[in-house]
Amino acid sequence: MSLTLGELAVRFGCELRGDPGLRVDRVATLDAAAAGALCFLANPRYRRQLAQTRATAVVLAPAEADACPVAALLSANPYATYAHMASLLHPTVPPSAGVHASAVLASGAQVDATAQVCAGVVIGEGASIGPRCYVGPGSVLGAGVQLGADSRLQARVTLEHDVIVGVRALIHPGAVLGADGFGFARDGEGWTKVPQFGGLRIGDDVEIGANTTIDRGAIEDTVIEDGVKIDNQVQIGHNVRIGAHTVIAACVGISGSTRIGRRCMIGGATGIVGHLEICDDVALTGMSMVAHSISRPGIYSGGIPAEPARDWRRIAARLKRLDSYARRLARLERGRGVAGNELGIEDADDD
Amino acid sequence: MSLTLGELAVRFGCELRGDPGLRVDRVATLDAAAAGALCFLANPRYRRQLAQTRATAVVLAPAEADACPVAALLSANPYATYAHMASLLHPTVPPSAGVHASAVLASGAQVDATAQVCAGVVIGEGASIGPRCYVGPGSVLGAGVQLGADSRLQARVTLEHDVIVGVRALIHPGAVLGADGFGFARDGEGWTKVPQFGGLRIGDDVEIGANTTIDRGAIEDTVIEDGVKIDNQVQIGHNVRIGAHTVIAACVGISGSTRIGRRCMIGGATGIVGHLEICDDVALTGMSMVAHSISRPGIYSGGIPAEPARDWRRIAARLKRLDSYARRLARLERGRGVAGNELGIEDADDD
Amino acid sequence: MSLTLGELAVRFGCELRGDPGLRVDRVATLDAAAAGALCFLANPRYRRQLAQTRATAVVLAPAEADACPVAALLSANPYATYAHMASLLHPTVPPSAGVHASAVLASGAQVDATAQVCAGVVIGEGASIGPRCYVGPGSVLGAGVQLGADSRLQARVTLEHDVIVGVRALIHPGAVLGADGFGFARDGEGWTKVPQFGGLRIGDDVEIGANTTIDRGAIEDTVIEDGVKIDNQVQIGHNVRIGAHTVIAACVGISGSTRIGRRCMIGGATGIVGHLEICDDVALTGMSMVAHSISRPGIYSGGIPAEPARDWRRIAARLKRLDSYARRLARLERGRGVAGNELGIEDADDD
Repeated sequence: MSLTLGELAVRFGCELRGDPGLRVDRVATLDAAAAGALCFLANPRYRRQLAQTRATAVVLAPAEADACPVAALLSANPYATYAHMASLLHPTVPPSAGVHASAVLASGAQVDATAQVCAGVVIGEGASIGPRCYVGPGSVLGAGVQLGADSRLQARVTLEHDVIVGVRALIHPGAVLGADGFGFARDGEGWTKVPQFGGLRIGDDVEIGANTTIDRGAIEDTVIEDGVKIDNQVQIGHNVRIGAHTVIAACVGISGSTRIGRRCMIGGATGIVGHLEICDDVALTGMSMVAHSISRPGIYSGGIPAEPARDWRRIAARLKRLDSYARRLARLERGRGVAGNELGIEDADDD
Repeated sequence: MSLTLGELAVRFGCELRGDPGLRVDRVATLDAAAAGALCFLANPRYRRQLAQTRATAVVLAPAEADACPVAALLSANPYATYAHMASLLHPTVPPSAGVHASAVLASGAQVDATAQVCAGVVIGEGASIGPRCYVGPGSVLGAGVQLGADSRLQARVTLEHDVIVGVRALIHPGAVLGADGFGFARDGEGWTKVPQFGGLRIGDDVEIGANTTIDRGAIEDTVIEDGVKIDNQVQIGHNVRIGAHTVIAACVGISGSTRIGRRCMIGGATGIVGHLEICDDVALTGMSMVAHSISRPGIYSGGIPAEPARDWRRIAARLKRLDSYARRLARLERGRGVAGNELGIEDADDD
Repeated sequence: MSLTLGELAVRFGCELRGDPGLRVDRVATLDAAAAGALCFLANPRYRRQLAQTRATAVVLAPAEADACPVAALLSANPYATYAHMASLLHPTVPPSAGVHASAVLASGAQVDATAQVCAGVVIGEGASIGPRCYVGPGSVLGAGVQLGADSRLQARVTLEHDVIVGVRALIHPGAVLGADGFGFARDGEGWTKVPQFGGLRIGDDVEIGANTTIDRGAIEDTVIEDGVKIDNQVQIGHNVRIGAHTVIAACVGISGSTRIGRRCMIGGATGIVGHLEICDDVALTGMSMVAHSISRPGIYSGGIPAEPARDWRRIAARLKRLDSYARRLARLERGRGVAGNELGIEDADDD
C-alpha cells in the first residue's frame, strides 16, 4: 500500500516536517532505505545512520528532528508510531474462510464461518473457534478448547483440552499450551503422578512465541492476563499467574504457583522459583535467578558477565573461599581494634 | 465418581476422623473447596487456609489433624495419598481402540487392536504399538519404534526410528525423542558430522514433558531408566544414562555421555557438563552448573539470587577483582605476622 | 557395507598398521567392539579401553599407535577420519522420490522430481523443494520457502513463509525457522506489535537441532552462514547473524541483532545479550552470560560450578556483601599506610 506523508501525519497525529505529498510504500532500515521507504529512529545507537539515510521519511522524536536530512514525522513515541504505520503499509492477509478438506473436526466442534482451518488440523469435541480466526497447518486443539475472535495459531500449535484463549491472540509454531503440570508425590522409592485437573486461561491480545510451553493448573487454573507478550522457548509452570501487559523474553522459566505482577519485564533466560510473588512493575535483567518474592517495583539483576577464561578460573576458585576471606578480614579488623559499629557497616561482625 | 470417606479410608489405609458416610466427588484447593470436595494439606505454607476450608474432607498428616475443621483422612504421606484418591475420583478416559482414517501406517507397522491411533499420525515400517496405547494427533513414529503397553503420546510427539519406550509412558506434546546427538569432528575450517548410530531406550513408568528433547546415542544407546520423570523443555544429550526414579525439572540441560544416578532430583534450568558421573541420591537446586562429577549423595547448589540492579552492578564489578582482594588480604596478614596455619584455615596461603 | 582395511587406508590416506585384507562392516565403542568392528580413539579419556579392545581396527593418532593391540589406521585427525569412514560403512538411505498422497501442496509449489515429500506435509504457494530433498512427516513449509538440494527436514519441521535454506541442510524435528521476532513498542500501559517483515537465510551445510527456534528479521534478514552447526533447543533472535562454521551447543539463547563471528564455539546454555558483536574464533564455555561485545579471539567463561548446598549458602550470602568487604580491606590497608601503587595493583583504590 502507498500513502502520502500527509495522510500518515494526520492519521497518527504527527507533526510533519517535509512535503505532505511525498509517498511511502514500505519500511526499511535507515542504512538500506531508498526512495519510497519509511524509517524510524528510536534507539540512539543508530543516530549515526540518520545523517546518511536515503529514506523518503523518518519517524523520530522532536529532539532528533534537526538532525534528519529527509522528511520527518515527529512523535513522542516514534517506535510505537512506526509500528502502527508499518502495519498500515503492509497489511496482514485476512484469513480465507473455510475448513481444509484434510482437517479433522470432532462432532460438536464449532468453527465460525469466517474462520480458516488449514490442512492437517485436528479439533476435538466441543471446541469452538471464533470469527476470523486462523488455525494454521498441523495444529491440534483438544476437546472443549475455546479460541477467541481474530486469534491466530501460526502452525503446529497444540492447545490441550479446555484451554481458553481470548481475542486477537497470536501463537507461534510449536507452542504447547495446557499440558500437564509437573506434579509428583514421593511414594516409596518412586513417584506417583498428581493428576492435573486445572485449566489454562489466556486473556486478550496475548502473543506467545515458538516452542513455548505453558502448563495447565493442578487444581485451579494457570492464568495469563490481557496483553502479555511471551517470546520463544519460555516455560511457565502450573498455577502460575502472569499479570497484564507483562513481557517475557526468550528462554525464561517460571516455576509452579508463582504470581508475576502487571507490566513486569523479564529478561531472557531468567529463572523464577516456584510459589513466589513478584509485584507489579518489576524488571529483571537477563539470566537472573529469582529465589525470593519481590515486593518493591524496580530493576533486579543476577547475571555475571563472562570474562576471559584464565581470569575467570581464578575468580571462580577465589569465590569458593569467600567465606574464609570474610572471616580473615574480620579477624584483622579486630586485631587493629576496629569494631563493626565504627566502620558504620552493618555486617562487620562476620566472624 | 462419588465415594464415601469410609470407602476412601479403607481403600488407602487412612485413619478417618469424621463421618464415614460423607461423600466426595471431586478435588479442590483448601481455599476454593465447597461441600463435596476433597482437599489435601502437604505444604505447611497452606496451613492457614486449613482453618477456613469448606471442604468435606482433607487428607493430611496426623500431626495436623487437630487443626482440621472438617473430616480428616490421616496419612503419613498425604500428598501421595491425595494423588491416588484424586485419580480414583477423576478416572482418565481409556483409549477408544482403532486407527483413524487419516493416520498413515507403513507396511509392517503393528498396532495392537486395543490401541488408539489418532488423526494425522504417521507410523514407520516395522513399528509396534502395544495394548491400550494412545498415539495422539499429529505424532510421528519412525521405523522400528516400539511403544509399550498403556503408553500415551499426547499429541505431536516425535519418536525417531528404533526408539524403544516401556510400558505406561506419558509423553507430552512436542517432545522429540531419538534425534541425532550433536557430534561433529573438526575438519579443516569446518566440521564433519559424526554419524549417530546409537539408540534411545526408555524404561517403564516414565513421564516426559512438552517440547523436551532426548537424543539417540552416537554408537551405544541413550538410556532413561524406569520411573524417571522429566519436565518440559529438558535437553538430554547423546549417550546419557538417567538412573531410575530420578526427577528432572524444566529447562535442564544434560550434555552428552553424562551418567546420572538413581533417585536424583535436578532443579530447573540446571546445566550438567558432559562425560560426568553423578552418583545416586544427589539433589541439585535450580540454575546450578555442574562441572565436575559428584560422588557423594547430598544437596548441591550454584545459583545466585537476584539483587536490586544498582547493588548487583557493584557486586559484579567487585567480583571481577576478587583475585586482587584475596592477594591483598594475604599481604596484610603477613604484614601483621599472621601465618596461614595460625588461622587454622587451609587456604590462607593465597599469595 | 563391508570394506577391507586396505580400502579404507587408501581412500582416507591413512597409514595402516595391520593386515590390509581384514574387513570391517560396522562401528563400535572400544569397550563393546567385537570382530568386524571399526573403532576410534580421539579422547584420551578412553585410552584405558584401547588395551582391551576386541575391535578389528582402531582409527587413532600416530602417537597412540604403539598402544593399539589390533590393526591401527593412523590419522592426524582420527575423529574426522572415523566420521568419514563411519558414513561409508553405514550409508544413509537416499530419499524415495515422490509426494505422499496425504501431503497438501498449494498451487505453484514446486517439488523436484527426485525429492521425497512425506505424509502429512503442508507446502505453501510458490515454495520450491530442490533435488533429492527429504521433507519428513508433518513438516509445514510456508509460501515462498526455498529448500536447497539434498536438504533434509527430519519430521515436524516448520519453515515460515519465504525462509531460504541452502544445500545439504539437516534440520531436526520440532525446529521452527522464521517465526516473528520479539518486537513490541511500549504504547500506554501496553505494547504494540512491531511487524516483522525481514526474512531468514540459512547457508549451505547447516545442521539445526530439535526444537530449535530461529526468528526472521524485523526489517532485514536473520542470517545463518555456511557450515554452522546448531544443537537442540537453541533460540536465535531476529536480525542475528551467525558466521560460517560456528558451532552452538544446546539451550543457548542469542538475543536480537547480535552478530557472531566465524568459527566460534558457544557452550551449552550460554546467553548472549542483544546488539553485540562477537568476533571470529571466540569460544564460550557453558552457561556463560555475554553482556558486552568481544573483539579478541579467545576463550571466555562465566559459569560457577555447584558446591555442596551448605557451603554455597554461605558463599552466596558473603557475595552480597562483597562491596563492604572491599571497602573494609582498603580501609585496613590505609590504616597500615599501604597505598594502592605500592601494591602494584591497579584497583587498590577501592574506597
